[in-house]
Amino acid sequence: MKFAIDMMGGDNGSLIIVESILEFASKHPEDIFYCVGNVEELGKIKDVKNIIIIPSKTVLRMDIEPMEALHDKESSLFITVDTFLKEQCDAIISAGSTGAILTLATLKIKRIPGITRPGLITPFPTYKKNKKFVCIDLGANTVNTKEELHQFAQMGSIYYSFMYNDAHPKVGLLNIGTEEEKGNDLRKETYQLLKNDPSINFIGNVEGKEPLYGNIDVLVTDGFSGNIFLKTTEGSCKVMSLLIKDAFKKNLLTKIGYLFSKKGFDDLKERMDYKNVGGAMLMGVNGIVVKAHGNSDFKSFTSALNICYDLAKKDIIKQIKEALQSK
Amino acid sequence: MKFAIDMMGGDNGSLIIVESILEFASKHPEDIFYCVGNVEELGKIKDVKNIIIIPSKTVLRMDIEPMEALHDKESSLFITVDTFLKEQCDAIISAGSTGAILTLATLKIKRIPGITRPGLITPFPTYKKNKKFVCIDLGANTVNTKEELHQFAQMGSIYYSFMYNDAHPKVGLLNIGTEEEKGNDLRKETYQLLKNDPSINFIGNVEGKEPLYGNIDVLVTDGFSGNIFLKTTEGSCKVMSLLIKDAFKKNLLTKIGYLFSKKGFDDLKERMDYKNVGGAMLMGVNGIVVKAHGNSDFKSFTSALNICYDLAKKDIIKQIKEALQSK
Repeated sequence: MKFAIDMMGGDNGSLIIVESILEFASKHPEDIFYCVGNVEELGKIKDVKNIIIIPSKTVLRMDIEPMEALHDKESSLFITVDTFLKEQCDAIISAGSTGAILTLATLKIKRIPGITRPGLITPFPTYKKNKKFVCIDLGANTVNTKEELHQFAQMGSIYYSFMYNDAHPKVGLLNIGTEEEKGNDLRKETYQLLKNDPSINFIGNVEGKEPLYGNIDVLVTDGFSGNIFLKTTEGSCKVMSLLIKDAFKKNLLTKIGYLFSKKGFDDLKERMDYKNVGGAMLMGVNGIVVKAHGNSDFKSFTSALNICYDLAKKDIIKQIKEALQSK
Repeated sequence: MKFAIDMMGGDNGSLIIVESILEFASKHPEDIFYCVGNVEELGKIKDVKNIIIIPSKTVLRMDIEPMEALHDKESSLFITVDTFLKEQCDAIISAGSTGAILTLATLKIKRIPGITRPGLITPFPTYKKNKKFVCIDLGANTVNTKEELHQFAQMGSIYYSFMYNDAHPKVGLLNIGTEEEKGNDLRKETYQLLKNDPSINFIGNVEGKEPLYGNIDVLVTDGFSGNIFLKTTEGSCKVMSLLIKDAFKKNLLTKIGYLFSKKGFDDLKERMDYKNVGGAMLMGVNGIVVKAHGNSDFKSFTSALNICYDLAKKDIIKQIKEALQSK
């Protein structure tokens, strides 16, 4: 398989990404990694057998206007997208601006036929061990129509089916109450579309507290509320982790307690660490495009690479196309 | 002070609320509690000196259409609102349907002059000990205009100022990025209104993960995303608490660890327990109306009573009116 990697997009520069790629490329010697970036910063990976460095000159700002991104043809992201197309890569990964990735990917790689708007999707950990759910859209859009939410439900179901081998994933619509008539017009109308689509296993409205218990598989929502959901979950879990640390540091007794309980808490930390959910796929584009966390560190960028790899291995784009055609 | 209490509105019936009122009324012998409900169920409080039972016949369903609530004049909520007006009470509390409370309160008690739409507001715990922030609207509305968000910012600031003695509370707009141009039209336009209002200490856009760290005082958003924020925070903290419990139960060593660490974790549990945030004020109505959690238990209903009491004691409605008039 071949991967096109934007080495420059993240808030933390190329250094951490270099380390992550170095490890990943050595673990996957049969695959090729096209690493796009400032050549001077990529010295450490220049002699690796399965890494090909593609030079780029500029880096897109995080707050760049999406259309502006189209004009800077020497940016690392622009060249990564070009490399993906030219070398017929299996996937793209970038920690750059969501808006720029969305614009460049949609305009240059195009959308899957029939899809109106791509949406960001990623798996979330839950209370149940080894059980994940996915949420779409996490912020590729700031406003969505009911038809777009319907497509998110379709794409989310296909993603979940193939990634977790479940033929009938349970789909919930994020809302402010569980009854059918809850929420604003967008939710009420989307509810009817989902209810009347036999290809979707729609279980109804779900509130923000529900998905984390692990009782649903696909959470559907617009990009604005999806991003609020993502960031709020991330922030709450992070704050709780800090409070756990503080609780163990309270006094000598609690410190001793930590030594005894460490095993249990290492497990908890590993499961709920959002660095393990480092990448979101831009679903609906005619190619695998993974957006890594803007402020990616080694662990989260590696996690995004893993997501990328799994998606490419399962040939997710072919699966989505086939599933959408058979509808 | 005089309180009008809907004893029947919660999912769990009157039993738990009776216990909570019994304790609260005995702690506040100088205040009068008008308890509205099914007389047969309220036997336990009928002989308490400062409790007056007001009989009601029906209970509004949780999924009742708001306008339908206006027609059932024998419901516990309807009679609670009537009692509030007739007895010139200081506050109302109900665990009933948000929509019904909103409709009855708005139409019978009316709004504070100048306020277009009331919004639900409540304090949230944060990472910093004893530091809270408030969020408005938590779900009284499903759609809001920029002018309504502006009023939420004004009312939220006044609420925070009086409840936490802070003359210049920091106001943040919930958004999907921190830069000025982030989000949809509603956020961009609200941003400008808040930025240009000198009476508001506006610090800009904040993402969902930010408020829990305790760096802002007032989080402003529409009722839909506010409810997603509330429920997601609540769910995440609850799931983390369950995982902490499980971590300590993992094996004999972790169980011993718990005995040592208990002190630290009791403190954590108390701080982040959403039962301590049992009530939200319906801000903008011309009287104190507190909505208790639909599935209130003893602890959360008592917490809602405490919020009610504090708001009445600080004469929050008078403060809001004065502050709005001076603008």
